[in-house]
Amino acid sequence: MDARILIRFLVFTCIIALLLLLTFTNLPYPLPFTTNTNCSVDSPRCNTIKKPPKPKQPINNLHTSDVPHHPLDPLTLSELNKVREILLSNTLFRNTGKYALHSVVLEEPDKSVVLRWKYGDELPARKASVIARVNGVTHVLCVDIGTGEVTPVDVGEHSGYPTMTIEDMTSATWAPLGNLEFNRTIMARGIDVKDLACLPISLGWFGKKEENRRLIKVQCYSMEGTVNFYMRPIEGLTVVLDMDTKEVIEINDNGKNIPIPKAAGTDYRFSVQNAKINLVNPISIEQPKGPSFVVDGHLVKWANWEFHLKPDPRAGVVISRAMVRDPNSREMRNVMYKGFTSELFVPYMDPTDAWYFKTYMDAGEYGFGLQAMPLDPLNDCPRNAYYMDGVFAAGDGIPYVRSNMVCVFESYAGDIGWRHSESPITGMEIREVRPKVTLVVRMAASVANYDYIVDWEFQTDGLIRVKVGLSGILMVKGTPYINMNQVNEVENLHGTLLSENVIGVIHDHYITFYLDMDVDGPDNSFVKVNIKRETTAPEESPRLSYLKAVRNVAKTEKDAQVKLKLYDPSEYHMVNPSKKTRVGNPVGYKLVPGGTAASLLDLNDPPQKRGAFTNNQIWVTPYNKSEEWAGGLFTYQSQGDDTLAVWSER
Amino acid sequence: MDARILIRFLVFTCIIALLLLLTFTNLPYPLPFTTNTNCSVDSPRCNTIKKPPKPKQPINNLHTSDVPHHPLDPLTLSELNKVREILLSNTLFRNTGKYALHSVVLEEPDKSVVLRWKYGDELPARKASVIARVNGVTHVLCVDIGTGEVTPVDVGEHSGYPTMTIEDMTSATWAPLGNLEFNRTIMARGIDVKDLACLPISLGWFGKKEENRRLIKVQCYSMEGTVNFYMRPIEGLTVVLDMDTKEVIEINDNGKNIPIPKAAGTDYRFSVQNAKINLVNPISIEQPKGPSFVVDGHLVKWANWEFHLKPDPRAGVVISRAMVRDPNSREMRNVMYKGFTSELFVPYMDPTDAWYFKTYMDAGEYGFGLQAMPLDPLNDCPRNAYYMDGVFAAGDGIPYVRSNMVCVFESYAGDIGWRHSESPITGMEIREVRPKVTLVVRMAASVANYDYIVDWEFQTDGLIRVKVGLSGILMVKGTPYINMNQVNEVENLHGTLLSENVIGVIHDHYITFYLDMDVDGPDNSFVKVNIKRETTAPEESPRLSYLKAVRNVAKTEKDAQVKLKLYDPSEYHMVNPSKKTRVGNPVGYKLVPGGTAASLLDLNDPPQKRGAFTNNQIWVTPYNKSEEWAGGLFTYQSQGDDTLAVWSER
Repeated sequence: MDARILIRFLVFTCIIALLLLLTFTNLPYPLPFTTNTNCSVDSPRCNTIKKPPKPKQPINNLHTSDVPHHPLDPLTLSELNKVREILLSNTLFRNTGKYALHSVVLEEPDKSVVLRWKYGDELPARKASVIARVNGVTHVLCVDIGTGEVTPVDVGEHSGYPTMTIEDMTSATWAPLGNLEFNRTIMARGIDVKDLACLPISLGWFGKKEENRRLIKVQCYSMEGTVNFYMRPIEGLTVVLDMDTKEVIEINDNGKNIPIPKAAGTDYRFSVQNAKINLVNPISIEQPKGPSFVVDGHLVKWANWEFHLKPDPRAGVVISRAMVRDPNSREMRNVMYKGFTSELFVPYMDPTDAWYFKTYMDAGEYGFGLQAMPLDPLNDCPRNAYYMDGVFAAGDGIPYVRSNMVCVFESYAGDIGWRHSESPITGMEIREVRPKVTLVVRMAASVANYDYIVDWEFQTDGLIRVKVGLSGILMVKGTPYINMNQVNEVENLHGTLLSENVIGVIHDHYITFYLDMDVDGPDNSFVKVNIKRETTAPEESPRLSYLKAVRNVAKTEKDAQVKLKLYDPSEYHMVNPSKKTRVGNPVGYKLVPGGTAASLLDLNDPPQKRGAFTNNQIWVTPYNKSEEWAGGLFTYQSQGDDTLAVWSER
Repeated sequence: MDARILIRFLVFTCIIALLLLLTFTNLPYPLPFTTNTNCSVDSPRCNTIKKPPKPKQPINNLHTSDVPHHPLDPLTLSELNKVREILLSNTLFRNTGKYALHSVVLEEPDKSVVLRWKYGDELPARKASVIARVNGVTHVLCVDIGTGEVTPVDVGEHSGYPTMTIEDMTSATWAPLGNLEFNRTIMARGIDVKDLACLPISLGWFGKKEENRRLIKVQCYSMEGTVNFYMRPIEGLTVVLDMDTKEVIEINDNGKNIPIPKAAGTDYRFSVQNAKINLVNPISIEQPKGPSFVVDGHLVKWANWEFHLKPDPRAGVVISRAMVRDPNSREMRNVMYKGFTSELFVPYMDPTDAWYFKTYMDAGEYGFGLQAMPLDPLNDCPRNAYYMDGVFAAGDGIPYVRSNMVCVFESYAGDIGWRHSESPITGMEIREVRPKVTLVVRMAASVANYDYIVDWEFQTDGLIRVKVGLSGILMVKGTPYINMNQVNEVENLHGTLLSENVIGVIHDHYITFYLDMDVDGPDNSFVKVNIKRETTAPEESPRLSYLKAVRNVAKTEKDAQVKLKLYDPSEYHMVNPSKKTRVGNPVGYKLVPGGTAASLLDLNDPPQKRGAFTNNQIWVTPYNKSEEWAGGLFTYQSQGDDTLAVWSER
């Protein structure tokens, strides 16, 4: 492959990989705020204490008059309604009892069309990309909203199923109750059905058993005495369910001897906390002239930045057309065409019956955006934040509004952007400081127990930083043990005994980002700058060694599969070889992976095949509009035949 | 070595290692603030625009009434005066014309004494640790301030000299002007002497030439037309000076054909900036009830934290006796006895004559605290910050005040400490969020061109985070080239052409922290938790592999030398084996190195011998009061015979 073929390229980078191995946990997080706050103050804490219940706004009053202004604007409420109308009158859907829309999102116009488009131009034809299941068959369709035309899209033959609908998930949690054996098992474990909380757990793919049938595993907890049911697993009980028919296929209970951990002390809610803990006074961000950013539809402008922002049911947040203003020419310069969370891979490290299959793909299986709950104003985001709603389609195609799904705010932590003082050596009277203010785009996805906080942060010096915060509650395992002195030294608990009868199971979180970098235009190259030790010749220098930077432009996709090496390090640059700085260096951006961890699972292990995008920390592939999801388009029960690793090897 | 011997241990960890390889630089950092701010607002920007000149307070009005309250409180002004009096009447100093005090700091009482001491108790005897040079000989002395007794301290035979005094540095920059050849050279390069700015550059040790004589190299710049003389090197000109006699030993000028880069566009001061750049409105942190921390002398109390804070001329900031309140027992629990920046190692990667020796040890050679300039209120630290002065002794022993050297403030960036929402799967109406507020202790050391911002951040969940920000200005190299099209492909520039005639030379910054962890008491062990792939047996599980955590308690110092391995990873725990959690796990802290880079220099290269503490990312050694400085007590011109690597091998 020639470097020219890499001219339009995508970077998939594994920004964060966390290995959680908890020695002890203090749930809940100590509350930093005092309870006797003067709530005339517009501060985070005040808001939590006295939050007037938000009136549920009827959907008709919201977003009904939205119209798209930009080729990348997400489908509006009325467009979603129109898509549903078109589909229901289509032969595929007409006269069928069973259908579900697993995804209805904007079919983005071709990149060249978007790049050519300017404000004032007419919008390109508005189209929807639809993933539907009709009578047990998956269809990918393109719906022209203007003409009503429905075109099947050939995405090739892939194993796997589309992202679950919210209805798939909620119905799965109730379906086992219709089963007599399940009810008997629950009663045998001493649980009152009214205290039951169940979770739909994607079961991955391990062979024949997970093929040709859309399945899910359901595990349950006791809510008795606590809202924090996650801490009260009915350990060892797993129900296998057919997601299409809701039929119970199998019930396993291998945990009869494992007590359900106690409820005492597990409730994390502020309202039930003992407030006798260390407290801090109210604190907030003050902007006497208001914030400096402007949100116009889905276009965000701040300082020297401009970008398009949209909520997405699968990715959560999509940043497009990010451009930064050149301080000299005053022109906007392209930086990134599109960036988003491509996939999450969360393998647990317990090979036993009730745990081995827990190898989640949170975006492709559950929908990272579908799980992004409304942000809590003043607590999730500071004062002066702007909140953007998500407008999505339910399984039946009827649109709904996920309010306050994304927030945009200016952040100032008291930090320094740049400074220089002259030291006593020179004695010059110089103290120059530029405080650091950034713009943050935030969402928080609550994928059952875990809460992922994803921040896209923009700096005035041109840097884009993606930060992922991991919060929420651990997914724990029940155990008969109440103290480590009961545990034989050779026994593998697969985790840490956190409290009586509770084990925190070892697991990883890998988050992979899709970054379509267009630095000063779409023709970019990927450069590995390898840092090599050079040895000096005798008498050349009093130094024996020094480091040299060796630039290597990636010529093949193989070249652009990066396994980080601690002792043979490189920097990674995305450059535009046709644009030079004043002194003749290619213009570019440096890619700095935030996490350096790698998956250590066997490459042939089914979960690792499905999560093969974690085999490298960085992959660069030529632009292909259909290759956006690192775990494949149809991740659910996929066999790993459509991952980034497969495309890259092709 | 038995694990018991490791009971009191130190952790030296290489928190940050940055490899700077700049493709382009936009100096200065774009200013985020508007210029037409309403300055009734107490915001960062306002302060920069109209800062009334601070009246220089006469030293007598400051700190003259300070008295120590805690065994670790730094020497007060009157104590420093007393130490000087005592020394000047001592036989060693009496009747000598030539002496300099390179360090006068508190001789800390033994750890056991400090741990026993309680408020209300009498202070242990106040003593000063003095490093003096008298007639060319280095002396380490212990001065009892109460009794006036002066005791020589045997620190063994080491190569190297003490940290330079400020007077050493400033006099070195002027000394060459007394040399005729130097003046001729300067004139030959077309520089008016009035435009000359020179820097004292520690020359390391490379063999005989740097032995038995306290030397320094001086390099100069032109200030003509800019305060940013760093951008205008008189390339290739190096003066070797005897630091004791100020005698010019050698003048090398290998840069006659290298033009001095232009001044245009280099001035970074806000007052001369073209303000037509993107602007943001004023922003600050608001605390209507004021901050929640209390500073009582040198003791800081905030939320559940309490610690002792002192400015130090070598380390910058020392945090001692850090304790966190147990939310259940309400008792203070020990976390860290002492933590500070032990050494910085900044090797440049250019083996040529004027650059090979640039392998700085900023703490041991220049004094990280001595170089910490007054912080600029509202710009370096936010509103409501508390500022602590440093009280140090000059070379002649006369005390002086470094005002506003350290600041303490509460930080709130709009971020989330902990959150959990229930997802649509369970449908429970839960949105719990705890905003994140932290306490920050900050200093900024301006070691000539670079500004290091060191933050010790305390979280309410018990975490301590050390952050290092690198700011300021690059140290650049002159070159005849003005465009990369003039450069032969095989030529090694040892860096990047940044602007016309200016190369940014490749270099590293390694910062090593000393952390004396006392988790729940001084008897701690160091545990490596190795993450290993386990393979399942046939039929054991549908999974082929999973990860297992294997705990290894370090038994020898060798065990506790950690080279991070990306594909054979470990976690690092400091545990108290005699204190268990309720369920029987040892209580501990996890050490997470912030940077994973390693030095790639040849182990036998003289700079790497001196900076051998960068051979590993973590070292754990048994407690030894005298082993605090990773590059050795006498770092200047040291031969690497007293480094952390040597102690650890012993």
